[in-house]
Amino acid sequence: MNIFKLEDLSISEISDLLDLAEEFKSGKKLNYNGEKIIANLFFEPSTRTHYSFDTAALRLGCKTLNFDASNSSLKKGETLYDTIKTFESFGCDALIIRATENEYYNHFPNKINIPILNAGDGTGNHPSQSLLDLLTIRQEFGSFENLSIAIVGDIKHSRVAHSNIDIMKRLGMNVYISGPEEFREDAYEFCKLDDIIDKVDIVMLLRIQNERLEKSMSITPENYHRLYGLNVERVNKMKSNSIIMHPAPFNRNIEIADDVVECSKSRIFKQIENGVFVRMAMIYSALEK
Amino acid sequence: MNIFKLEDLSISEISDLLDLAEEFKSGKKLNYNGEKIIANLFFEPSTRTHYSFDTAALRLGCKTLNFDASNSSLKKGETLYDTIKTFESFGCDALIIRATENEYYNHFPNKINIPILNAGDGTGNHPSQSLLDLLTIRQEFGSFENLSIAIVGDIKHSRVAHSNIDIMKRLGMNVYISGPEEFREDAYEFCKLDDIIDKVDIVMLLRIQNERLEKSMSITPENYHRLYGLNVERVNKMKSNSIIMHPAPFNRNIEIADDVVECSKSRIFKQIENGVFVRMAMIYSALEK
Amino acid sequence: MNIFKLEDLSISEISDLLDLAEEFKSGKKLNYNGEKIIANLFFEPSTRTHYSFDTAALRLGCKTLNFDASNSSLKKGETLYDTIKTFESFGCDALIIRATENEYYNHFPNKINIPILNAGDGTGNHPSQSLLDLLTIRQEFGSFENLSIAIVGDIKHSRVAHSNIDIMKRLGMNVYISGPEEFREDAYEFCKLDDIIDKVDIVMLLRIQNERLEKSMSITPENYHRLYGLNVERVNKMKSNSIIMHPAPFNRNIEIADDVVECSKSRIFKQIENGVFVRMAMIYSALEK
Repeated sequence: MNIFKLEDLSISEISDLLDLAEEFKSGKKLNYNGEKIIANLFFEPSTRTHYSFDTAALRLGCKTLNFDASNSSLKKGETLYDTIKTFESFGCDALIIRATENEYYNHFPNKINIPILNAGDGTGNHPSQSLLDLLTIRQEFGSFENLSIAIVGDIKHSRVAHSNIDIMKRLGMNVYISGPEEFREDAYEFCKLDDIIDKVDIVMLLRIQNERLEKSMSITPENYHRLYGLNVERVNKMKSNSIIMHPAPFNRNIEIADDVVECSKSRIFKQIENGVFVRMAMIYSALEK
Repeated sequence: MNIFKLEDLSISEISDLLDLAEEFKSGKKLNYNGEKIIANLFFEPSTRTHYSFDTAALRLGCKTLNFDASNSSLKKGETLYDTIKTFESFGCDALIIRATENEYYNHFPNKINIPILNAGDGTGNHPSQSLLDLLTIRQEFGSFENLSIAIVGDIKHSRVAHSNIDIMKRLGMNVYISGPEEFREDAYEFCKLDDIIDKVDIVMLLRIQNERLEKSMSITPENYHRLYGLNVERVNKMKSNSIIMHPAPFNRNIEIADDVVECSKSRIFKQIENGVFVRMAMIYSALEK
Repeated sequence: MNIFKLEDLSISEISDLLDLAEEFKSGKKLNYNGEKIIANLFFEPSTRTHYSFDTAALRLGCKTLNFDASNSSLKKGETLYDTIKTFESFGCDALIIRATENEYYNHFPNKINIPILNAGDGTGNHPSQSLLDLLTIRQEFGSFENLSIAIVGDIKHSRVAHSNIDIMKRLGMNVYISGPEEFREDAYEFCKLDDIIDKVDIVMLLRIQNERLEKSMSITPENYHRLYGLNVERVNKMKSNSIIMHPAPFNRNIEIADDVVECSKSRIFKQIENGVFVRMAMIYSALEK
């Protein structure tokens, strides 16, 4: 089974993946005893997603190949498809791919005969991130129906936002969007952060992705922090059992104040923990379904 | 046992390696259970050869070290020999080495006491590539005697060509060479591609290695494609049971037309598959002989 | 147990680590059967230390994550602490860290709840290097008391020197320091190399670390070699059972003449061998204590 984007999965398939992740978190063991080889093909820099998938594969007893894009035949002009086809030809059992181009997987429908797990495509989708976000939310609140979330920041360039908004609405959540004008998309209505901060169950911050901006942000980092950053003052206005999330890496003192990163409401490092379990579930599903 | 170049091996040793590779392809299992450590030392960018050797070692139950030359003490001025000697000192069981310098292994005769498998030296030799080419040919035609091959392209900078021409002649094959004047070598007679395209059993294309050219190619890519590129028109002139090979990575629409890459005559991705089995045979021989 | 610097360890703890390393050298087997994951986080180029730790972890049956700093979220501005906390969140069992900043580990006291082994911090400490140096010396001379060592070269920028001088004095060794004026530190008295060359049991050379010098060295490489380099003439003045050490990588014909690198007195590659055993002992201690 491929996982390109959560849109392709039913609510019940998503639920099954979260259940399986929870089982891995509770200690479920599954050991492929080195019989399966998983290739991590990251064509963009990544720490969390890359090594989280690597850890997940190793915990399942798979072996991993870690493709170093900066030191590869891409330098000799090889296309993305040809590189992917090469790893299929090696006899790998599944591929984890991050690429710069949105929906890269639509360029080669049915031409790769082993499962692909999308680890992020340009500004498009990031299903493993969405799943770990959902797992973190479900652990906290038990279900999704009628929860309110504020997603704050660079909506335009964020595959995290794109992946999450759709699935969260399907799950019955109320999704509020906030962020500077330059990062908005017409498809969504935007709110002032301070109008919703005391109403939502979850504040999900997004990273300012300087590497994706054609020109630098028009507001200063200081103004961003003042208007959209999560500081202690805003945290104090949040509902008593509400939580803070961020896909990381985070820009300290821009999206989030230093002293908020590890405050009692923050689930940022818990998200990273959950990422490994969610990715174990994805790899298992890719290999078995 | 070291494998530096096929010249050093007898026909019968080569045959044994191909037989062993075929056994691995047929499912032969061999498991070192993590007792052996193989170091991949690639001092030049590589996708296929590097990860194919890595896959081969993992399939044999070896552990692998993957040396990242761009992030190493080479930056501190360490020599190739000293780096190699270092990995020997770690207690590695075999080394896979690609280096920029031709015949780098002649600089330290008998000073490294563990087996070395040459994964490519400058414009010199590339024995694992030759072996996988031979395996692919033998699978197709059963034997080598009297087969005709056209090797087309940048002969001058190609270690694939240098490795193949000699061994193919020793095996009784008729080797035709074609390519632009600037890529020729005096040692070989050159033919016009269109004079031989309908006579040969195998058309083997070579990559234009822009990274090895001191100045850019004097003919345009379009002219190269017109004169030496394999397009559908030329494929249609080929003998009925003939095949197309390319060591990859390939420059689409220069050496080979887009719609020829995966045509029924192409064995390009089968070569890559075979590469893993051939390298398993090489690693096994290195460790055992 | 963390190992940040040898200063934090008692003589008896150091002795235990050396004993354990010696047991691994003698063939002691310990196999975590893939149950433990060790992450190598190298924020600076390294060959020896990185792959030596990697080899050590693999020999112990651990799995390893090899973080590629040049292709990571550091490019997106992530802090060192946040990267380290991320690998802790993955559920890694221990972290091996090399960082550019001296005493980086003091920035997050008690915030990382898994063991950290310091693989070098800026110009500060390098405990695994010191331990392998001590093991090499103990193998040669049986004990440390009253041995004399000359440490020669760039004392100022050398974490090897800083790590070694303190522990060697604690062990009762006589430590002589030599090197050009620009590399001296006020804390130590300096000698002329030729005044002590015939008196010491060990000559330990240090690498000129061009990458750490703000401006290039004021003496020429030729003059450095003449005044502080170890050449055959100086080797011939050394005591009969004395030895030569260098942490490597070495600049041939600057710190050490080509024909001295592998002379009978040299223990340079033996140091590298010992490095794996010492690091196995460190990893084992980190996981068990």
